[in-house]
Amino acid sequence: MKVAILMGSDSDLPVAQKAAAVLKELGIPYEAHVASAHRTPQKAAQFAEGAKAAGFGVIIAIAGMAAHLAGVVAGHTTLPVIGVPCKGGALDGLDALLATVQMPAGVPVATVALGGGANAGLLAAQMLALADDSLAEKLAARKRRLAAEVEKKDRALQSEI
Amino acid sequence: MKVAILMGSDSDLPVAQKAAAVLKELGIPYEAHVASAHRTPQKAAQFAEGAKAAGFGVIIAIAGMAAHLAGVVAGHTTLPVIGVPCKGGALDGLDALLATVQMPAGVPVATVALGGGANAGLLAAQMLALADDSLAEKLAARKRRLAAEVEKKDRALQSEI
Amino acid sequence: MKVAILMGSDSDLPVAQKAAAVLKELGIPYEAHVASAHRTPQKAAQFAEGAKAAGFGVIIAIAGMAAHLAGVVAGHTTLPVIGVPCKGGALDGLDALLATVQMPAGVPVATVALGGGANAGLLAAQMLALADDSLAEKLAARKRRLAAEVEKKDRALQSEI
Amino acid sequence: MKVAILMGSDSDLPVAQKAAAVLKELGIPYEAHVASAHRTPQKAAQFAEGAKAAGFGVIIAIAGMAAHLAGVVAGHTTLPVIGVPCKGGALDGLDALLATVQMPAGVPVATVALGGGANAGLLAAQMLALADDSLAEKLAARKRRLAAEVEKKDRALQSEI
Amino acid sequence: MKVAILMGSDSDLPVAQKAAAVLKELGIPYEAHVASAHRTPQKAAQFAEGAKAAGFGVIIAIAGMAAHLAGVVAGHTTLPVIGVPCKGGALDGLDALLATVQMPAGVPVATVALGGGANAGLLAAQMLALADDSLAEKLAARKRRLAAEVEKKDRALQSEI
Amino acid sequence: MKVAILMGSDSDLPVAQKAAAVLKELGIPYEAHVASAHRTPQKAAQFAEGAKAAGFGVIIAIAGMAAHLAGVVAGHTTLPVIGVPCKGGALDGLDALLATVQMPAGVPVATVALGGGANAGLLAAQMLALADDSLAEKLAARKRRLAAEVEKKDRALQSEI
Amino acid sequence: MKVAILMGSDSDLPVAQKAAAVLKELGIPYEAHVASAHRTPQKAAQFAEGAKAAGFGVIIAIAGMAAHLAGVVAGHTTLPVIGVPCKGGALDGLDALLATVQMPAGVPVATVALGGGANAGLLAAQMLALADDSLAEKLAARKRRLAAEVEKKDRALQSEI
Amino acid sequence: MKVAILMGSDSDLPVAQKAAAVLKELGIPYEAHVASAHRTPQKAAQFAEGAKAAGFGVIIAIAGMAAHLAGVVAGHTTLPVIGVPCKGGALDGLDALLATVQMPAGVPVATVALGGGANAGLLAAQMLALADDSLAEKLAARKRRLAAEVEKKDRALQSEI
Repeated sequence: MKVAILMGSDSDLPVAQKAAAVLKELGIPYEAHVASAHRTPQKAAQFAEGAKAAGFGVIIAIAGMAAHLAGVVAGHTTLPVIGVPCKGGALDGLDALLATVQMPAGVPVATVALGGGANAGLLAAQMLALADDSLAEKLAARKRRLAAEVEKKDRALQSEI
Repeated sequence: MKVAILMGSDSDLPVAQKAAAVLKELGIPYEAHVASAHRTPQKAAQFAEGAKAAGFGVIIAIAGMAAHLAGVVAGHTTLPVIGVPCKGGALDGLDALLATVQMPAGVPVATVALGGGANAGLLAAQMLALADDSLAEKLAARKRRLAAEVEKKDRALQSEI
Repeated sequence: MKVAILMGSDSDLPVAQKAAAVLKELGIPYEAHVASAHRTPQKAAQFAEGAKAAGFGVIIAIAGMAAHLAGVVAGHTTLPVIGVPCKGGALDGLDALLATVQMPAGVPVATVALGGGANAGLLAAQMLALADDSLAEKLAARKRRLAAEVEKKDRALQSEI
Repeated sequence: MKVAILMGSDSDLPVAQKAAAVLKELGIPYEAHVASAHRTPQKAAQFAEGAKAAGFGVIIAIAGMAAHLAGVVAGHTTLPVIGVPCKGGALDGLDALLATVQMPAGVPVATVALGGGANAGLLAAQMLALADDSLAEKLAARKRRLAAEVEKKDRALQSEI
Repeated sequence: MKVAILMGSDSDLPVAQKAAAVLKELGIPYEAHVASAHRTPQKAAQFAEGAKAAGFGVIIAIAGMAAHLAGVVAGHTTLPVIGVPCKGGALDGLDALLATVQMPAGVPVATVALGGGANAGLLAAQMLALADDSLAEKLAARKRRLAAEVEKKDRALQSEI
Repeated sequence: MKVAILMGSDSDLPVAQKAAAVLKELGIPYEAHVASAHRTPQKAAQFAEGAKAAGFGVIIAIAGMAAHLAGVVAGHTTLPVIGVPCKGGALDGLDALLATVQMPAGVPVATVALGGGANAGLLAAQMLALADDSLAEKLAARKRRLAAEVEKKDRALQSEI
Repeated sequence: MKVAILMGSDSDLPVAQKAAAVLKELGIPYEAHVASAHRTPQKAAQFAEGAKAAGFGVIIAIAGMAAHLAGVVAGHTTLPVIGVPCKGGALDGLDALLATVQMPAGVPVATVALGGGANAGLLAAQMLALADDSLAEKLAARKRRLAAEVEKKDRALQSEI
Repeated sequence: MKVAILMGSDSDLPVAQKAAAVLKELGIPYEAHVASAHRTPQKAAQFAEGAKAAGFGVIIAIAGMAAHLAGVVAGHTTLPVIGVPCKGGALDGLDALLATVQMPAGVPVATVALGGGANAGLLAAQMLALADDSLAEKLAARKRRLAAEVEKKDRALQSEI
């Protein structure tokens, strides 16, 4: 199954690239598109409605300000939708975070941290790994590697403090 | 021209009734519907797309939490859309306010105060009055009446302070 | 009908220019003035009271911090008033947003996003288009163009992700 | 010199009464009025402009939500203006606080705590006491009495803890 | 695969029951436990580490205040972890929301709305449905039913407005 | 060594009693006083300056709104000062929390959660236990007991979910 | 009567200079000192207690973070105290604003905007002008000049929009 | 007794160095480590559990975003734990502050200001000084020196204002 990465605006590209990098590293196929909940609502709706039939398993939706993309996409599919709020020009991202996470009962959005593109990619992988043991093992290995990197940094800073 | 009052949930009915009361008082025809951006997205989209042809001039969209209804409706129409954020169970309404007002360039939502149903109705009337002198005069009279009521309250409280 | 663009301070000029640019693009006449709710309150009041007679249909009021301009203007007219809160030196704009949008019943301000000058211009156009079919068609065409631009950006970024 | 107590709405009466009680206790004459920045803007402006000539020394302005009253009054007078933000139905008073205190350079509002009617009365008295030694002595005595009350409460609670 | 529902405190039970009700409705087996990140950290860690081997596919973690449970659990597993922040006695839930969602890169938590137990159960089901077509169909049917209920409510309120 | 419990107002008594209950349970002597940073500043200052000589080891300071008590006390002593912010009538306690915790370099206040009287007592005990092995053992036993209570609650709720 | 300008830290000097500039312009004598509520609490207390006898009429207190200076000074005097909260390294100044304004009944602080040094100076002048007609006239003239400057800026920007 | 300085990430090093500098100045031995609550949870747990036996008296835990490190460490020890929230890329540090301070009853974290590394070191020293008179005297001397520095700055700025 593929992962879809939707951006509300091309200014969200750096966050999308972090998601894409994780997916690429784990060998998970993905497609990325700009699809605004407000400027191209039909496109966003059609993409979401057709996503399952098109072979997608998870949809990542990245947006800032009144970040409606994830919620709108979730309204049109029963696939799990991951929302990534982005910091914009004001309010330090609180607007996008609340607009993404505070969904009403019946239409969940799995929200990650502000600008959390990498975690969105990783969460998508965790979902797909439920039916893919080889991917699950890659995730476990990645987790061990992260821990080892922390250890390495711990040793490195002993000379600085 | 009619005004449409859309609610994201039937729990928003008290706010919608405040808008309806103002419109009724001013003799403006209206229709009210529940139309969720997340639970009935096609309905919301179709209503918005067909609103102008159906004789609507302004759309009022009332919603709480991750309040996407006004933004989604605005994505599907060039009619002016008035957003009314509602206070819900947490965060004291900040979520709905930011999700309604922080729209990206190209798709405005005319946002009023939290729970501001009456002002939404009045703002719709102000827009319609641009081409309706009789309605404009009703609005001016209403404004004078509000001021007179403040005067009356001022006199009334002189005995209490 | 003309649109008035009022700024609380000349430091709000960049936001006002975004509103003006949209109005110019759509062929809508406008005037712009600095008129502070606090430093020139008589001027602001007189402008608002005389606006309808002077041929204005909509007033855009742009201000930061304790952003009272839109509310004060709305107290003196029954024309629709659009408020644009601006981010200032502290609190990341939350002060201006709340001071603009949280108006009491009877005196609505149609609030757009922080710094949302372009959307203020567009919203004014949507209001005027209620009685101007040619303007309504321009708005519909502009909306289609925005969608097409998103599509173009979508194609452009395929090589970057 | 008298103190003026202005309320944006008669729902602010309980806060105004706290200010009035302090002034009465200290023997300072006062007048109280409802005068909305939005519903009766001319009245608020005229009151502020004429306040000095009418024998007022300080103006207390009490309002909630987009609390513009203090700022608007301050725009029309060089008398010191004390602003009292009030908690309303949403956002727990943050809207009124920011709308009252964040005034631009040139037009100060002396802001006290949310619902701080008593402190508004006291602050007005402190200002008037600058030219009234007998009032200054009353304030000093009141301060000693407050301290003594704390002492009394301290002794009283020794049996409860 | 089973779903685990962990609560930081037994006061979170009402939220957990909403998650359980959705899982029961969809025929998904689950277990629920109190397991505090602070009071029984070893238990929380051991549960998370052994969850995959014990046949769990998704872990729902429900907590308020400094809501660390979801993050701590996510640190000990590569299964997807859903975090449900809860409103507590102060700050209206903002503390729990930020403490749940703002996870660092490498350890995602799929955060849902404050008190969003039902959506947590539904999101877990969406993840499991990636490998379970019959469950996927149940979810699609449930979505259609939700839409139909909105329609029913729409008709019902026509008499009230 | 004794623990001092200072309250800014007798309305903070319920929070102080939670601290006192923990200290009593652990056999730590304490004294409690009302001592306002604003209404009895000399008393607060003198208490803090003389606290060490009077046999106190830790000072707990409990206050709401502009909660200055802990900071003021910390300015007058080198004993560790624990600050407990309290939720008051507005802003849901954010005012007291920020006023307590955001101390400048050189004068720390050990801040606990809003209304966290019990944790203040426990933190004071942890500090005193650094030089009291028997107290340290009591704390360890208490921690085990808390964990056991969580286990008991876990078993109890199995019938409810 | 003189005005005292107290700073919690010498990093507040730029804000103090704005207050000083206004006082100098209006011919009001002033003194400025660094006096921390936390690092030199005795000095701050003694200054406040002796301020009236030393010929001061108003005290301006400028501080950031957990900004206790104004409140502490107000606890030691019955002179009016003006608090100026300053933006620091985090939270965008919300900490200093709430710590300054949310004073309990009995001890008011006249709070101005974040970084509002100029308004603090002006507010002090307004208080002193209650007993100084010549100063009152200077303030009225300054207000007219501010209005004239706005007019000038209005004309200047006509070419830019 | 030694002090442990734990960082959630090596990006927290500058804050840790401020704590270390204070401890070094006061002659208190310390160790510093990177130990993430999420990436190396076992390490963090084991460190906390063994800290007392290893000769540590106080643990300082420094982290940003969903700052769980201090809380998790406090779950595994009865030593006093000092939490230092750090400002990250969004929300201006509010996330880390709330995630650190809002601990449930039974597991306190002594929270200092955002980025308050120096105060964390000083607070640790105050705790250790409860059983170390020589350290207590060093702290008293340091406090006098801070006051003297404020005096020096006060004299220095007399020429600038």
